[in-house]
Amino acid sequence: MNKIITIAIDAMGGDNSPDKVIEGVKFFLERNKNKSDYLLNLYGDEKIIKDKLNLYKISSEFIKISHTDSSVSDEETPLTAIKNSKNTSMWNCIKSQIDGSADISLSAGNTGVLLVISRMILRMMDKVSKPALAGLWPNKTSLNVVLDLGANIECDDKNLVDFAELGSALHKSLFPNEVSKVSLLNVGSEEIKGTEILKSAYKKLSDLSGENNFIFKGYTEGNNIMSGESNIIVTDGFTGNVALKTAEGTAKFITDNLKKHLTENLFTKISLIFSYFSLKKFKNKLDPRKYNGAIFLGLNGPVVKSHGGTDSLGFYYSIDLCYRIIKGNLMKQIKNNLNHLKSEI
Amino acid sequence: MNKIITIAIDAMGGDNSPDKVIEGVKFFLERNKNKSDYLLNLYGDEKIIKDKLNLYKISSEFIKISHTDSSVSDEETPLTAIKNSKNTSMWNCIKSQIDGSADISLSAGNTGVLLVISRMILRMMDKVSKPALAGLWPNKTSLNVVLDLGANIECDDKNLVDFAELGSALHKSLFPNEVSKVSLLNVGSEEIKGTEILKSAYKKLSDLSGENNFIFKGYTEGNNIMSGESNIIVTDGFTGNVALKTAEGTAKFITDNLKKHLTENLFTKISLIFSYFSLKKFKNKLDPRKYNGAIFLGLNGPVVKSHGGTDSLGFYYSIDLCYRIIKGNLMKQIKNNLNHLKSEI
Repeated sequence: MNKIITIAIDAMGGDNSPDKVIEGVKFFLERNKNKSDYLLNLYGDEKIIKDKLNLYKISSEFIKISHTDSSVSDEETPLTAIKNSKNTSMWNCIKSQIDGSADISLSAGNTGVLLVISRMILRMMDKVSKPALAGLWPNKTSLNVVLDLGANIECDDKNLVDFAELGSALHKSLFPNEVSKVSLLNVGSEEIKGTEILKSAYKKLSDLSGENNFIFKGYTEGNNIMSGESNIIVTDGFTGNVALKTAEGTAKFITDNLKKHLTENLFTKISLIFSYFSLKKFKNKLDPRKYNGAIFLGLNGPVVKSHGGTDSLGFYYSIDLCYRIIKGNLMKQIKNNLNHLKSEI
Repeated sequence: MNKIITIAIDAMGGDNSPDKVIEGVKFFLERNKNKSDYLLNLYGDEKIIKDKLNLYKISSEFIKISHTDSSVSDEETPLTAIKNSKNTSMWNCIKSQIDGSADISLSAGNTGVLLVISRMILRMMDKVSKPALAGLWPNKTSLNVVLDLGANIECDDKNLVDFAELGSALHKSLFPNEVSKVSLLNVGSEEIKGTEILKSAYKKLSDLSGENNFIFKGYTEGNNIMSGESNIIVTDGFTGNVALKTAEGTAKFITDNLKKHLTENLFTKISLIFSYFSLKKFKNKLDPRKYNGAIFLGLNGPVVKSHGGTDSLGFYYSIDLCYRIIKGNLMKQIKNNLNHLKSEI
């Protein structure tokens, strides 16, 4: 019998929750009818959650509810969170990993608070210098792991090496049949380019490169992130955050313009009849909901942050991501990589 | 009579030169038939340039040729350039600003060498701490100035303040009827976000904000660069370079995907008949050739770097950019801004 994968879900976090959470759960149940190796443990107000389960006509042996009286508000700051967030749905959801009752936690709530209390409750793994927030990013053939996306705005060479180990472990857990190829994000591909921190990380990663771990491909540039040449892109949290948001802004700018031009007159509207299915496939490939979920790595347990503004379909994808991460043995992959790190540096 | 605007052009730099340069010159002459206030001074091998002018059937009183025996190769590094690039077409083209025979220089050649020799020949302006490479970036309503795009990979608060002054001067020279609004690129819009350098620059820019200079709009994020809320985006050269290239990579990824889906079967091909003109307008708006030309600011004379791989139409746009910059009195705008800077800080 397969091991049961338990996903602890903060049912109360993010816009329009718990509705989107519960409907996301419904999508997950519908799409995983052939599986019986998981349990979704929903944290939040039991009465509200039960009402919503009834509303969405959900009754399943794969769901459990863990009642909490309160939840973290969007106005809470990381500074006040430690005092105010104890025993909220977010807190208890993460806490459940400590007593072994969950394998992974998921929340669409306040990002700053989630990072602070995750770190406080789960603590950093030995040998990891800083935890990192990793995201999935489409490339030509599959998906990239990009990290750090904003957990650490300043990083040294040791942090960047850790991110490579953590990111390639995540990549292996999600895409076991692909070779993990790491690149460092820089302003040029030549070895002489970049800061002293990058040059030092480059040297260390070159020494670590190997089949048991990851293949280090050297530097890459912003225009190559989506080319598929590497599948793990390592950078500091400031640069990673700017790159991710710039890509989002550019995608929105282009698709808004396309939409405007394809609906501007009768001819273009006729054209849409002929291209409807193809444009739908195009839109589907770029749908940000499919890549929803940033993974907080480097703690003694993985935490997934769903976008606060996503909808139920986006939330479904983040539950699915949690399932696949644990199915792929993320924590074991990380420990393997970190052992390797210790023996080499 | 209007003052003559003299543009010194390195005819030999970049892929497929001098062909693209000469054809770019042809486009400029054709599109400016009603003007007589400019002179294009072409630096390079006189015989080759004359042959190409004949080939493209160009004969104009607004062109001058300044012969040089050599040009800078793409393999030259900034380190060897000082010794090897003297009296090349690029060198003499920039040098011509020193004796007052040109107002601005333009080259599609080796970027690293261009930055080094521009700085050496033209020298930094008093009161400027570091020169910056600025680019134009489309936004919803017009164009943004974004800087630094890679001249300085590490910057302090004083550098960022200078970039705001230089960038808003460039913006004023190109768009005299718009209000210059400056934002600092950061990982969040709240005042507490970002590095200590950003926080200090934020404070200094808040003090400088005013109608004579620019309106400081605070922090912005990557997804807002193209929103049009600000029109001057200030960042260090590392982040700016990554952001620019990430936007380019994202745009390419999306348009490649769109192209693939719109040509995948008979129906989509029929749809193209109906949407042809609208998609052409869409493509035209996003055509990177229209935004070709990065402006090196902060020296005692402006230098424009055309993309090395652009074609003749792209090169035309960079000549046009040079003309508009000088027409808009860039150097006077910069001096005004820097005086203002001195009196306030």
